Amino acid sequence: MLPETPSIETGVQVMFYDTDCAGVVHNLAYLRFIELARTQLAEQLGMGLQDMGRTQRFPVVVRIEVDYKRPGVLGDHLTVRGRLDSVSRSRFWFAFEIVRPSDGAVLVTSRQTCALVQMPSGKPQRLPAEWITCFGHLKGE
Amino acid sequence: MLPETPSIETGVQVMFYDTDCAGVVHNLAYLRFIELARTQLAEQLGMGLQDMGRTQRFPVVVRIEVDYKRPGVLGDHLTVRGRLDSVSRSRFWFAFEIVRPSDGAVLVTSRQTCALVQMPSGKPQRLPAEWITCFGHLKGE
Amino acid sequence: MLPETPSIETGVQVMFYDTDCAGVVHNLAYLRFIELARTQLAEQLGMGLQDMGRTQRFPVVVRIEVDYKRPGVLGDHLTVRGRLDSVSRSRFWFAFEIVRPSDGAVLVTSRQTCALVQMPSGKPQRLPAEWITCFGHLKGE
Amino acid sequence: MLPETPSIETGVQVMFYDTDCAGVVHNLAYLRFIELARTQLAEQLGMGLQDMGRTQRFPVVVRIEVDYKRPGVLGDHLTVRGRLDSVSRSRFWFAFEIVRPSDGAVLVTSRQTCALVQMPSGKPQRLPAEWITCFGHLKGE
Repeated sequence: MLPETPSIETGVQVMFYDTDCAGVVHNLAYLRFIELARTQLAEQLGMGLQDMGRTQRFPVVVRIEVDYKRPGVLGDHLTVRGRLDSVSRSRFWFAFEIVRPSDGAVLVTSRQTCALVQMPSGKPQRLPAEWITCFGHLKGE
Repeated sequence: MLPETPSIETGVQVMFYDTDCAGVVHNLAYLRFIELARTQLAEQLGMGLQDMGRTQRFPVVVRIEVDYKRPGVLGDHLTVRGRLDSVSRSRFWFAFEIVRPSDGAVLVTSRQTCALVQMPSGKPQRLPAEWITCFGHLKGE
Repeated sequence: MLPETPSIETGVQVMFYDTDCAGVVHNLAYLRFIELARTQLAEQLGMGLQDMGRTQRFPVVVRIEVDYKRPGVLGDHLTVRGRLDSVSRSRFWFAFEIVRPSDGAVLVTSRQTCALVQMPSGKPQRLPAEWITCFGHLKGE
Repeated sequence: MLPETPSIETGVQVMFYDTDCAGVVHNLAYLRFIELARTQLAEQLGMGLQDMGRTQRFPVVVRIEVDYKRPGVLGDHLTVRGRLDSVSRSRFWFAFEIVRPSDGAVLVTSRQTCALVQMPSGKPQRLPAEWITCFGHLKGE
């Protein structure tokens, strides 16, 4: 059964390969952290990774907006929060933020637009009817 | 001397590590391609990588918008085009597109907002006066 | 206090960005998984990430041997096991294996040689005397 | 036609995302540089990336040995040299080194064992008969 408002919270620790020689977390690393969260959200929506490998039906990112607000550093324990923000007939939107609980800082916020695509044709699919029912309160653009 | 409108064009070929098991280029890989282009643009603006390592003064990305339009695949020869789009007192904007010359497809477009930051303090710097003079025709937000 | 035989076990799930278009986990992704484990081992040896950022004294990899035995796929839950294998005056060796508990498959094994280096000079340091005492039973090459 | 001794030389410049907060190139980045070189070597052996995507027959790395000798830093222009080192009935070996022409330093050396695999079955293939003929002087283990 689908949750009323899909949302997750997941923890990561900043590793060497997440940082660069300016001494802070590299901008691409935050987007990798968010992918972890997006994957867990997709699972709540009935799209588990192991199923996707089999069905070749994938949630695909079509637009990313990301704001970098404060830098993270090596060893930081960060929390990535994500939620389903809105849903239309063929697209859905996730909202994310990465926070550092030790000082309450918000490091990064991001909004991502996704579509459901059948590979290898690459054809966008209509979203499941059930989503419209369950997520009517998240009606999107 | 600064060019009137800084712009570059650089080529990349899609490697295995750029793709994922959906058979197409992973969304993070395109942003890595764009970093190559942004670095070359920064160099035109007098910010060479080797200088940055020494001065610890870095152009920092504060916002990324990216639209994924068509998928690239293994072995594709892609062209990343970038240009300085606009300049304000403390921020500057780059515009990028990744195209596949073999069929003319535009795969990705992106707009990125940057600031100039002094490390390790993390303090944003005012942009060089010379930029305002040279890039008056690119006056930004 | 140092453990008699430092060892850890950590879990990862295979994400899209860990795979490539051959449908399996990319060879570099396994090494990233192992870095997670190596970091946790270093922490047991008194080298926490947050301390390193401050002291600029880092455990550095000087040699990696890695054998790829079986492929992992999207969504796999993998376990990375690591242990301190041996210690000499200025080098130490970690042994790792990545297994898939669902079928017991060993996907990857690796042996990595490390040294302790002071940055920015890059000078190798003698290992702490305490290590020789504690890890005498792990006397290395 | 196959070259007598397949070998290549390719240039890369160290980007931010190649470095970490110890101020030097991260160990995984060198292996990504080497993948570029290995891909170009594979192409000389008749295995172009675009063909692989079609035939699903891939050269697969089964073992990597890599020695890290000196650190590279942001902005370094590096040269990756690779050559086919030896060939047996079902495996072949590449040798690589990454050098910094500005001071002649050898940063990294690596030896990599490859096999030819048919996906999705994952079955190792016998190497082309032509290889044995052409590379008899590189007879391997």
